[in-house]
Parts: sequence; structure tokens; C-alpha cells
Amino acid sequence: MAEYDLYYWPTIPGRGEFARLVLEAGGADYRDMARLPESEGGGVAAMLAIVEGRGSHRIPFAPPFLVHGEIVISQAAEIAAYCGERLGLAPADPADRLFARSVALTTADLVAEVHDTHHPVGTSLYYEDQKPEALRRASEFRRERLPKFLGWYEALLANNPAGPDHLVGDALTHADLGLFQAVEGLRYAFPRAMAAIEGAHPLVVALRDRVAAEPRLAAYLASPRRIPFNEDGIFRRYPELDGA
Amino acid sequence: MAEYDLYYWPTIPGRGEFARLVLEAGGADYRDMARLPESEGGGVAAMLAIVEGRGSHRIPFAPPFLVHGEIVISQAAEIAAYCGERLGLAPADPADRLFARSVALTTADLVAEVHDTHHPVGTSLYYEDQKPEALRRASEFRRERLPKFLGWYEALLANNPAGPDHLVGDALTHADLGLFQAVEGLRYAFPRAMAAIEGAHPLVVALRDRVAAEPRLAAYLASPRRIPFNEDGIFRRYPELDGA
Repeated sequence: MAEYDLYYWPTIPGRGEFARLVLEAGGADYRDMARLPESEGGGVAAMLAIVEGRGSHRIPFAPPFLVHGEIVISQAAEIAAYCGERLGLAPADPADRLFARSVALTTADLVAEVHDTHHPVGTSLYYEDQKPEALRRASEFRRERLPKFLGWYEALLANNPAGPDHLVGDALTHADLGLFQAVEGLRYAFPRAMAAIEGAHPLVVALRDRVAAEPRLAAYLASPRRIPFNEDGIFRRYPELDGA
Repeated sequence: MAEYDLYYWPTIPGRGEFARLVLEAGGADYRDMARLPESEGGGVAAMLAIVEGRGSHRIPFAPPFLVHGEIVISQAAEIAAYCGERLGLAPADPADRLFARSVALTTADLVAEVHDTHHPVGTSLYYEDQKPEALRRASEFRRERLPKFLGWYEALLANNPAGPDHLVGDALTHADLGLFQAVEGLRYAFPRAMAAIEGAHPLVVALRDRVAAEPRLAAYLASPRRIPFNEDGIFRRYPELDGA
């Protein structure tokens, strides 16, 4: 038995990665359930049984979700905040602690918008069946939304009274880890757009580099536990959506 | 001075209503800042100044946000949970308390999906400029997503060990208020689709009715503080998107 059981699709980083990064950076004793064999209680079928209500009466709407004893938490940002607050990856100051949650939830919104660049009509259809809509949505995302989100993160870093090394407070938090993952995903999905915009956001880039160099994170990122981005996930590399 | 200052667009219920309902149901001492005159520190300009970083270093990405002393919280579900936990509108049991947050955040996802039925390409364009995409997205929403969300709420109510009167625990919480508002908005935006599907979700409908009859809520809903749904908000009545 591990202390934390994380459930998410086993072949994509997706939203689950925002929880996984906190567990990894916090050195948590956790299991990645859907990637374990059925003989250990793992697998996708075991995950879906919980979503279908055959586990706790606390039924998550969708993966990712975390089971921690009697506790069931869904929503990537909520899992990240919950784990971060227990693993030393959240601000100590109460107002900062709450604000870090707001930042993490806003990153979840960014991730949802990235998902909608390739699935603007709906998740029940293939990308190929909504490509004209995706081209329009992605163009709007690159032009309007990407600068707005990156500019906001840059402003948080520039205005942080504890200095520009972290989004909130003076130490690494789940909010920083979320931004790291968002930047990695954006670089994968929109390499052209990101190359064009990163220079105007030096504090965001520096934060990304600092997170990648954290010893626990660096070890994780080099391990097989880190699932590469791919075209089944949230961040997909379709060159036509990157204005290529 | 009030204890809580809520900031949201003054002419739509939108995402701000999920926070406002908790403040109202909890009998909070709050101000609806953007609806106050400038002479009282209110108005849209005062709200946007905070979003632009001219207030606290805790800069919200977008309205709604709550200012409570030094605390700045953005994201509707996070504001609702924060206020609910302070105003007696959250479960006492720690696991239930966390699960109520997951439910509230999932309702926020539902609201985002409703928004995207009329703005699938992006918020910087008018509905009229993305109508073909909206027709496809709304059709997918009515066929796939609406039944999935309502079925999930119904299952939570049916499986609640404390009985089917509340989503989590044995008393009214911010999660229930969120579902109430979602049902009201869905009835406004998709009257045909909702009329067709409500009969299969009797516990959801009963919860909606119970919330509407809560004395504080009933008084609020009958007051001018309750902003009617309209076609500038999240929930919009465009008959063509309702399959009419």
C-alpha cells in the first residue's frame, strides 16, 4: 500500500501530470494506479469502476482523481493543491496559500483552452472531424489567449514581494509546478508561437528552468515515469494549429 | 466597509453568481463592488484596475474575484468553497469538505462547456461570427455532455449515505448552490433539451426546488440583487443552439 493513489489515463501526461508533478516533487509515497497491473489493483478498468460508482460513494466525474484513505479528490488543480499543502509545496502564509490555489485553477483553465484548440466542437469527435473549427480556435488562442496568460504569469512574478523566483511566496509551490508543466506543454504543442513569445516573458522562462533543475524533478523528468507528450493528450503537436 | 468584497461584471449573473449565491445563502456582510457607484469605490473601472495589477500584488486573472482583507481569491468555485466553509455552507466532515470542492470545480467545468456552446472559437469574437461552429458544439453538448453531467449529479444524490437531499453530507452546501445555479442556467439556455431530460433526473430537480425554497435564497431570488440571465452572459438563450 502506498499513501496516495493517483488515477489517470496511463498513456498521456494530460491533466494527471499536474498532480503527478506535485507528488514527485514532494517525494510522496504514491502509486500511479492505472499504470499498475490488474494483479495489484491497477489498470484502466479499475479506474473506470470508480468513475462508474463502483468504489466510494464519492464518485469523481472523470480522471484524474486521488484516493487518500477515505478521501477522494478530483480536478487536477485541487489534487495538486491538496498534495502541495501536505508535502511542503504550498505557501505557509494563509493569504498566499489561497492565492496559490487561484493560480493553479487558472492554469487548469489555460489547459482546458489548449485542449479546445484541437477539440473545439467536442471530445466525442476526432480532431480530423473538427479541423476547420480547430484552425480558427487555435488561431484565436495563439493571438489572444496565449499572450494574456503568459503576460499574467510574468506580472505575478514581477510583482511578487518575495522576489521573481516564484509565482507566490518565497519557495517552490504547486502553482510553480503547474506553470512549468503548462510551458512544457505549450512548447510541445505550439513551438513556433512559443519561440516568438518567450523572449517577452523572461521570468516565466527562468521559472521553468529552475523547476526543471530541482533535483527531485530532474530525476523524475529523466525517468520512465514521465510520460512523453503525444497526440492522444491535451497538448498535441499539430503544425497547422501552430500557424505553420 | 463590508467584510467581503465581491468583484464581477455588473450586468450578468455569469460565473460571479456562483460566489454571490453562497454569500447570500450564508447571510454574509458583502458588497457587490462593480455594481456600486465610483464614489463608494465601486464600478467596473475599479474592478479592472485590480485585474491590471493596480491593487494587490495578488493579481486575479479575471473576474470574479473576492477581496477579504489581505486575501484575494479568484475562480468562482474557489470563492464559493472559501465562503461556504466560513459561512456554514460546507460539510463538517473533512473528506466530505474536500469532495464538495471537487463537485464545485466540476460544476465550473460544466459552466465553461456551456459558455463554449456559443463561443467555441473564442471570446474575442461575437457569437454571430462563430455560429456554424456553435451549432455543432451545442449539438454535441446536448447529446453527450448534458446527460453525462446530469447523470453524475443524480448518481451523487442517489449514493449519498446521508440521503438524497444534498450532493455531499446532510446539509446545504456551496456544491448544492452551484448545482442549483447550473440547473437554472441550463433551463434558461436549453429549455427544450432540459424539458426532455429532467424527468430522468428527479433528485436533481428536487434539489433545485429545495434550494429555491430556502428562506434566504427565496428572498434573494425575488430581490433586484438577482441579475436575470441574458444574452451577454454565460447562459444564453439562442433557440437554434437548443435544437429548435
